[in-house]
Order: sequence, then C-alpha cells, then structure tokens
Amino acid sequence: MQSDQIIIFDTTLRDGEQCPGASMNIKEKLEIARQLALLKVDVIEAGFPVASPGDFQAVEQIATEIRGPRIAGLARALQKDIEAAAKALEKAQAPRIHIFLSTSKTHREHMVEKAKEEILDMAVNAVRLGKKFCDDIEFSPMDASRTEPDFLVAITQAVIDAGATTVNIPDTVGYAVPDQFGGLIRHLRENVENIDRAVISVHCHNDLGLAVANSLAAVKAGARQVECTVNGIGERAGNASMEEVVMALKTRQDFFGLRSAIETKHIMACSRLVSSLTGFFVQRNKAIVGKNAFAHESGIHQHGFLKKKDTFEIMEPRDVGLEESDLVMGKHSGRNALRHKLKDLGHDLQQEELDRVFEEFKILADEKKEIFDEDIIILVQKQKWSDDSLNIYRLGKIKVAFETGVFPEATVELTSRDGKTRTATGKGDGPVDAICNAIDKITGLQCKLLDYQVLAKTKGKDAQGEATLRVLHETREVLGKGASVNTLEASGLAYVNAINKLLLKNKSGPLEGGELPGP
Amino acid sequence: MQSDQIIIFDTTLRDGEQCPGASMNIKEKLEIARQLALLKVDVIEAGFPVASPGDFQAVEQIATEIRGPRIAGLARALQKDIEAAAKALEKAQAPRIHIFLSTSKTHREHMVEKAKEEILDMAVNAVRLGKKFCDDIEFSPMDASRTEPDFLVAITQAVIDAGATTVNIPDTVGYAVPDQFGGLIRHLRENVENIDRAVISVHCHNDLGLAVANSLAAVKAGARQVECTVNGIGERAGNASMEEVVMALKTRQDFFGLRSAIETKHIMACSRLVSSLTGFFVQRNKAIVGKNAFAHESGIHQHGFLKKKDTFEIMEPRDVGLEESDLVMGKHSGRNALRHKLKDLGHDLQQEELDRVFEEFKILADEKKEIFDEDIIILVQKQKWSDDSLNIYRLGKIKVAFETGVFPEATVELTSRDGKTRTATGKGDGPVDAICNAIDKITGLQCKLLDYQVLAKTKGKDAQGEATLRVLHETREVLGKGASVNTLEASGLAYVNAINKLLLKNKSGPLEGGELPGP
Repeated sequence: MQSDQIIIFDTTLRDGEQCPGASMNIKEKLEIARQLALLKVDVIEAGFPVASPGDFQAVEQIATEIRGPRIAGLARALQKDIEAAAKALEKAQAPRIHIFLSTSKTHREHMVEKAKEEILDMAVNAVRLGKKFCDDIEFSPMDASRTEPDFLVAITQAVIDAGATTVNIPDTVGYAVPDQFGGLIRHLRENVENIDRAVISVHCHNDLGLAVANSLAAVKAGARQVECTVNGIGERAGNASMEEVVMALKTRQDFFGLRSAIETKHIMACSRLVSSLTGFFVQRNKAIVGKNAFAHESGIHQHGFLKKKDTFEIMEPRDVGLEESDLVMGKHSGRNALRHKLKDLGHDLQQEELDRVFEEFKILADEKKEIFDEDIIILVQKQKWSDDSLNIYRLGKIKVAFETGVFPEATVELTSRDGKTRTATGKGDGPVDAICNAIDKITGLQCKLLDYQVLAKTKGKDAQGEATLRVLHETREVLGKGASVNTLEASGLAYVNAINKLLLKNKSGPLEGGELPGP
Repeated sequence: MQSDQIIIFDTTLRDGEQCPGASMNIKEKLEIARQLALLKVDVIEAGFPVASPGDFQAVEQIATEIRGPRIAGLARALQKDIEAAAKALEKAQAPRIHIFLSTSKTHREHMVEKAKEEILDMAVNAVRLGKKFCDDIEFSPMDASRTEPDFLVAITQAVIDAGATTVNIPDTVGYAVPDQFGGLIRHLRENVENIDRAVISVHCHNDLGLAVANSLAAVKAGARQVECTVNGIGERAGNASMEEVVMALKTRQDFFGLRSAIETKHIMACSRLVSSLTGFFVQRNKAIVGKNAFAHESGIHQHGFLKKKDTFEIMEPRDVGLEESDLVMGKHSGRNALRHKLKDLGHDLQQEELDRVFEEFKILADEKKEIFDEDIIILVQKQKWSDDSLNIYRLGKIKVAFETGVFPEATVELTSRDGKTRTATGKGDGPVDAICNAIDKITGLQCKLLDYQVLAKTKGKDAQGEATLRVLHETREVLGKGASVNTLEASGLAYVNAINKLLLKNKSGPLEGGELPGP
C-alpha cells in the first residue's frame, strides 16, 4: 500500500534562485534554508554545485549547518557535476544527489544531440556513479512531459535498476494539463516494472497557470513527492507554489486523503522572507500569501452580514500564520519579549544579533507609539543588510535639495571599512539619481540602475519605507535593499547595500561549456 | 453537436473592481472596457447597477458607448436589482442581465435564511422578471460547487425553463478541484433535462491556486463560457486569469479542441492597463503577463546553447503582444507615427487627447534620446490623470530640503480650478510625508496614507518613476497616480491626483441592506 504522506521538495534555492533577477548570496540562502527547516520541508534543493564556486559554497554551507530536511544538490549526468555535488554535500546528515538529463525528442535532437540509447547509457552510468557517493539518488528525465511515454518507461526502469530512489517527472516547459499529466504518472506506475522501488516525484512549471493543478493531478495518480518553491518563483512563470500545493492538500484532505509534514503556520513568514530577499514581490491577489487572500474577512464583517464564517472562508488565516498576535510591543517591552516575538515571526537570532536588534528597537520605540510586526521584521532585515563584517561602505549623512525646474543636488557621506569618511556632491534628474551619482563619485564604480522601487511596509504616518533596487555593474546584477521612515534615505541605503554586495564578489562567473537551466 | 467556441465573459469590471483596493471611477472603467472590446472578449460584465449610483452610471455609460461585446449587469434575485440592471443596460446593443442567488446549504442557512423551495421560487421569479426586460438572462446559483448536486440540477432546470439562456456554475469560495468540478459539469449535462437550451458557464475563484485548472476541466466536460478577469484580479485570491485560460486553450488546442475569439496580441496592453489603473501589480513570475514569463529567451540566447526555439518555449512572445516594435520613436517622429505607435500599444485616442500627448512627447523627446514604449504609455496615462475637466487642484512647484537628522520640510504650490494659487509649507518624517502635509494644509482635508509605492517604469538614467498611493478620507479609499523623472514630484502628483478623485465623489455609499459579494 502506498504511503499517504507527500514529500515536499523545496527548490526555491535552486530553480527559484537561478531565474533572472532572483540570485542571492550565501548568507541570504542560509537564511531561507533555516526558514525552510522551520517550515519542515522534507528536502531542500540547495543549489547546483558545479555551476559556480558561489553555488558550491552555498550548498556546502547549507549541508553543514541545516539539520532536519534532507539536502539535495543538482548535477547534470556528467562526472564532474556528480563529483562536485557529492563533495558539496559531504557534511550533510541526509544528502541527496539529483541528476538530470534531457529525454524529449526536441531536447535530444537540438540540445544534447544524442540518440535514445546514448541517453539511456548516460543516465544509468550517472546514477551508478552517484551511488558510489550517496545512497539517495534522484533522477530527472528533463522535459519528461514531452518525452515519448515508452522511452520514459524505459529510462525510468533503467535508472531505478541502477539505484535511483526517486524518479522525478518534470514538466520542464509548463506544457502539461492535469488530465494528461495524471495519466502519464499512471502510465509509469502501470508499466515500469520496478516502480515500487522508487518514489515518483513531479516538478511542474507554471507557464499556462497549471503547475499546482498538474502537481495535484500527479499525486492523485500516485506521485508521492512534489517539487515546488515558496511564492512559486522559478524559471519563467515559475514552479508550483509550495503554499498552494500544501494548503490544497490540507483544505481538500477529504478529496486527496494525503498529508504533508509542513508546519503551515510558518508559511507567511517564509513567503515574506523570500519576497524580500529576491525582490520578487507577491501580487495582492496571489492565492494563500497575497495581501487580499484573506481580505474578505474585514470587508464582510464590516457590512455586517457574516453570520457564519465558512460561508466565504475555506481556510483559517491563522493556519498560514496570519494570526493577530497577542503580544503588543512598545517602549516598555524587554529583551525577552522581543526574543519571543522574533521567534513568533520565524527569526531565531543569535545573541549578538538579538542585542543589536534590541538596541534599534529601543530607538524606534521612542519614536513610534505602536510597533507593528512589520516594523520588527524590518529591524531584523536592516540588521542583516547592514552587517558590518560584510560591508565595504557605510552610508553617513545625506543632504538633498530639490525644487521644481532645477536639477536636484545631493551631498552624501560614505565611510569605508578603513574608517575613512568621504563626502561628494552629485546632480541628477531626480533626487534618487542625484544620491546615486554622488555615491558613484566616491566609489568610482560605474553602475546602471536597472530597477527601482519603494514600498511603504508599515502603517500610519510614521510608516517605514523599503527601497529595493537592482544595479548592473559590467555583467553582474545585484539587488540592494534599504529601509527608513525617509524614502530618500532608504534609497541611499539600498544603493550602498547593492555596492557592498557587488564588492563582495561571492558569486563568480558562469559555468564553462554552457549552462543548463535544469528540470 | 456542441460548439467548439468558448465564450469569454470578462468580469474585471465587476468581480475584479469590487475587491478591496481595486475600485475605479467611471472614466477608468470605460478605458478598460474599450481595451476589452479591442481584445474581443464576448461579454463584459460592467458592474452591479443597484450597488451604488456610481456603479449604475458606469454600467449605463459602458452600455451606451461600447460596441462589440455583449454588456452584462449583475443583480441579486430581487425586483429592484433586476430593474436597476435593466435600466442601466437600456442603451446596450446586446444586453445581458446576470442574476445570482445563494444555493449551498451553508449560504441558505446562514446568509439568505431560506429553504430550498423558497430559493427555487425566488430564482424562477427573478428570471421571469428579467425576461420582461431582456432576452439574454444568465443565472448563477451562488456557491454552486458546495451545493447538493441534486438541488443544483433542480434549480438549473427550473431557471432554464423560466428562460435563462446561460447557467453559470460558480466556485464562489475557491474550494473545487478540477476532477470534481469537471464531474459536476458532467453531472449537470447528464441530469438537467433541458440543458441543451442554455450555455453552461463557470466562474472560478483562485483560493487554492486552481481557478484556471477548474475552468479548463469544466470546458473539457462541456461548459462553453468561462468567467475570468484580466491578471486574475477579484475577490480574495481573485478569479480565473483571462490570459491564462485563453493561452492554455490556444497552446493546447491539440488537447482541448476549442477556441476563443480573443485577439491575444492585445493581452499585454490590457494587462498593463488593468495593473496600472487598479494599482494591483503583477508579480514577476506571473504566467503569461509577468516580466519573467518569457525571460528565458535572453538568458538562454546569452549562454548560446539555444539551438531550437521550442526546446524551452511553448508560446510565442509576440502572440501575447510582447513583440519588439520596429517603429523607433524620437524627436523627429511626427504626429502620425505617434498615432500609429499608440494604436500599436492599444490606445485609440481622440484628436484632442492625441494633440496633448503629442505636445508632451515633443518635450520628452528633447530630454531623452530614446523613447521606449513605456515612456509613451506613461505620457498617455499622465494625460488621463491630469485631465483638467475632472480636477479641482493642480500641482505647481515643489521645493524640498532634507538632511539626515532633521525633519524634512516641503513647500508646495497648488492651483485650484478657480485659478487661485496657494502655497503652504509642511514638515514630516520623510520628504513624501512633508509634501502630503503641505498639500493637506491647502486642501483642508484630513487624509490617511494607506499605501505608497514608487516604481521605475522605464529604463536608463533618465527613467520615469511612477508613484502609486492609496489615500483614506473618512470611509473612502482612492488610488492616486503620478509619474515624473523625479520621484518626489511623482509622489506629489499622485497625492494631488488622489485628492482630486476624492473630491469628485463619483462613487457613493454602499448598498443599503447589506452588500453581497456576488458569485
């Protein structure tokens, strides 16, 4: 009999991170990995070790520090990839090597340029090599949903024979529809002779808006692992959204009869963290984690006709972590209350970090009457962004003068790591442009602003604004963040944050020989 | 034999518009209705006429001006609602009255407090009344997916007998899963004796991320109308996303064997318009219309291994209107080139509007070397926001001084419709706050800033920023927009835009007797 437990395989740090604009540094990846462990995902795909030294180190560090979830590393069906993955995963308590290889006709002919037999041999040899390093081997026939079903049966059977313990069926291009995709999983269950020796997994892309539905059709047909990402980020239109898959299984337990181990009350915190670190904002009407997802509540209460909750509500907001907290924070709250609140919000800080956040909290509590959860999250994030150990420059005073019809002028003070403070004045089309130009004069870097946004993140007159910008320097793109009650200061902080990230250079050049996007 | 044509029923202006934060004024609704007509949707649900005088006028004006699509107005199963809908639709070429009534057990018991028989009578009487005004009557049993299938069969049969030409099966709370929902449609086709005399429609909500999949399962089972919204906006997690439904049908024609009349090349323009007018931004990884949806292109080309397009691409970017335009605009472009480009971008301006945009275009072309499509869209939108016939106040000069550690001070000049110019100075926590406070001093209004964001909308050093803010005054919330190369000026323009909208008061109080959210 099949288990009723669905394995949640999170690939936010691999498929999510590799999509245009979402790249993160090691510190950020570790922070997300910690949240994923708190959320109790079963497997964290931490990266693609051979892709770059930065990717390798991220997988290695996550494998060393994170306990709880199994840690997976991605590899093509090549010796160097598999060896790199094995090495990066050495310190993992429960490692997994995830090997992928294209199997569809169009990929065979136009991408890998190999015949079926060669593909079959490569796959089997890769799995055998992987087995020398690691018991837990997952194999993905890339573009499986467009692969001839018979060939898919043959390769699946062969890799299971070679030792694969999970066979993952990716809908790489987001082409599948639920009926057909469920049918494909059934076809494999009925025709792959040794299928009982492996877990069937699925990995769906959302190009037609069907990633979640395809994943659910697959589990209904017998798949027992779902690959997904927080907020559904990933290549192109992204992957199946973890929170939607998990909450659909939970809410429709009557239909699926399946469960996941996810602690759903951490979903909102995890969603917010991923959104903030990638700069991929969640749209207001996104299912489960969008601002409006549970917004009917207030509206309906307001009009006074809600007689029974379930007339319009199929999920409890508190199940996804939207509960109103009882713990009100203010100027009299102590260090323990703050620690408790932070834990509640999903942040388990080290003593030193807590001390610094507490200091900032006391300053803010003097300025603001009510401290909202968002204020505290911003304090934690500011703390992380401004971590001195990583920074080359620190923003000092800013002075801006602007008058309609005159080019704005900004004077900015930067302190570098060696303690030297320099001041420069710049002009620009707008005040933000002027601030950036002044900073460029000090750093000597020629940066291009690709993207810029400011969002009010808290409520009330004294709301904090968060500035997010993308900066291009030569071929590298980085995301900078800053927060302040003053939007210009927030913008300056974000630009300096981006410059510091650029100077860190912890992500090096692309993989030689051409990158593959993965399943 | 059933038709292979799917009727696209767009409810962006009704279900989309009524969700928290998305409300629009008549002008904005008309603009979207024009785009929907260009897109060739079959039915536009223009609003809920009885809900407020503003809603009534919007439906009336759309019914008067828009030709092509059928125009629908929503009504509860009440005489006053149906009469209001009929009156608002009087000038429509092809009107439809859409009547809804709760049918599920929980809604019957806790919301309408009526027994099955009473519900049945109300529905039949309402449809009969509607028939006196209009041949085309759609009936929606609200919360149909949670209604007892036998009762659903009975009420469907009864309303078709009474004259309903479309029966719409809403998954009001977003609870359905594709298999079950398709099954329900089959159940109706097999058990409602007169089902051949009506079109089966579906209206799916996205609470579990399944609205598109449920809609597609329903059409596979025989539904021939899909209710959807642009960008999937709507109550809570929104409705089925129009662009996803349409592109899934088109891309998987092999599987569905169905087609819609939608001119898909206008999808992007329509998505951008709805996003801009509602302030509901589309997330980067949203299917079809997100910034990354086709972003693999550049990435893969860059790495030089794309040998054949369809290895990763299942749709052509130009099919949804993402084609690179050949027409480069610059300071030497004339009025006709601009008109042509505007049409290309989906804006069909009247001569007077074109003249004003052309003037602004010439000024911008002097300042900027390259004029991107986004620049031109912003010019059109600025033109619309600053339409003097609707405005009470116009923003003059702004002067802002800011220095770290000192409260920023802003001096603002406002000209009112009577030609008087007043100046005031305000302080604030940040420069935007200071600008708003100075404006408040002149207008005398006490407004609360609910939400604030700035996005760079164009590329390069001289990028234009678009400020979007939500302002609450007493119980009314309005959205304000402004654009400028200067973010502070954009913010001031947005705040004044919001104030002007507040003063227009074209949306009056809520429906007496308690509002219903609709299907």
